[in-house]
Amino acid sequence: MTDTRIAVLRLGHRKGRDPRITTHLALVARAFGADEFYLAGDEDAEMFATLSAVGERFGAALKMQHVKSPMALIKRWTRRDAGDGEPGTAAHLTMYGERFRAVIPTMPRNRPLLVVVGGTKVPAEVFECCQFNVAIGNQPHSEVAALALFLDEWGGDIDVAERFKDGRLEIVPSKDGKVVIDRDDENQGC
Amino acid sequence: MTDTRIAVLRLGHRKGRDPRITTHLALVARAFGADEFYLAGDEDAEMFATLSAVGERFGAALKMQHVKSPMALIKRWTRRDAGDGEPGTAAHLTMYGERFRAVIPTMPRNRPLLVVVGGTKVPAEVFECCQFNVAIGNQPHSEVAALALFLDEWGGDIDVAERFKDGRLEIVPSKDGKVVIDRDDENQGC
Repeated sequence: MTDTRIAVLRLGHRKGRDPRITTHLALVARAFGADEFYLAGDEDAEMFATLSAVGERFGAALKMQHVKSPMALIKRWTRRDAGDGEPGTAAHLTMYGERFRAVIPTMPRNRPLLVVVGGTKVPAEVFECCQFNVAIGNQPHSEVAALALFLDEWGGDIDVAERFKDGRLEIVPSKDGKVVIDRDDENQGC
Repeated sequence: MTDTRIAVLRLGHRKGRDPRITTHLALVARAFGADEFYLAGDEDAEMFATLSAVGERFGAALKMQHVKSPMALIKRWTRRDAGDGEPGTAAHLTMYGERFRAVIPTMPRNRPLLVVVGGTKVPAEVFECCQFNVAIGNQPHSEVAALALFLDEWGGDIDVAERFKDGRLEIVPSKDGKVVIDRDDENQGC
C-alpha cells in the first residue's frame, strides 16, 4: 500500500474513436489507486459524467480535468523551479521503456507521481521530459493493461475497505454469483 | 513461467462498438502467454487480420477462431465425458468473483486453461459452467486490465526470448528512446 499522491495523464484522447479505451483507463486509474485523472486531446463531458457516476456508486471518485497542454502539465509537475508545490515524478508508460519490475523499485515514493499514458504518436518530448520511461513488457498490447499492471506493482493490493468506504455499492467476492451490498437499502431499514 | 496450454474466450463481441477493446484483449492474451483466442458474438475478419499482422511482426502468433456457441466451447472444454482430449479448467473473469491472488494458487496447472472474458450481460450459465469465477479486484474497471493481471499472476514473467523468437521485430528496453531490432535488416547484410 502507498500513500503517494498519484495522478494519471491520458494523452491524445479522440472523442469519436477512443471513448471506451479512455473510459477503461480512467476506471483502472480509480480502481488501482490514482486520485486524479487528466485528459489531453479532445474534451469529453459525456465520459466525465460516466466516470462521475461510477464514483458516486462505488466511492473513491476521481478528480478529473481536461488539459489543453499536456507538456505544460508534465513540465510543471517535474520542475523544481515551477513554484507550484512539491516537484514530482513523471513516469511515461511505453513499450519502448525499461522493464517495470526493474524500474519501479528505483522510483521515489515520497513525491507526487504522474503516470503518463500515450495515445497514437507520442512526441519525443514526452520521452525526454518524463524522468522514467517504463515498459510493461516490450510487446505491443494495451495502455489499459499497462496502467493496471504498473499501478498494481506500484501500490500492491489496495486497502479496499478504506479506499472505497464512501461508495453506495459494495461487491462481495463470491464463488459463483453476484453479491452486492447497497448501503442505501440498509439505511432505509433504520 | 508455465507451460499450461492457455486459451482466451471473449464473449459477446460487437463489431461496431467493441473493436478496440477486443483487439486489446487479444493483444494482451498474446503478450501475456495465451496461444489461442476464441471470439464469440460478431465475426470480425478485419480484427483477425490486424492481430495476424502483429504476430507476423513480433512473433508468437495467436491461433484465432470465431465460435458460434461459446457455451458449447466451455462445456466441451470442462467436461470429462466430452471425448475431446484432456478435460480442462475454465476461469471466468468477473468483478463478482473470488479474489484472484487467493484463487489462482488453487487452480490446477496440469490441465488446459480457458480464460473466459465477458462482454455486456454475461448469462448466469457462464458463472455456473466455469469452475472458477475470478475477480481482479471487486471494483468496476476493465476486462483488458483484468485479463492482463490474471495472466501475469498465472504465468509470472514470460520468457520473452523464447516466446517471441520467431518475430521479425524486437524492442530493446531503453531509458529514453525507441530501440527496435529488425531481423530482416540483419539478414539483408548476410
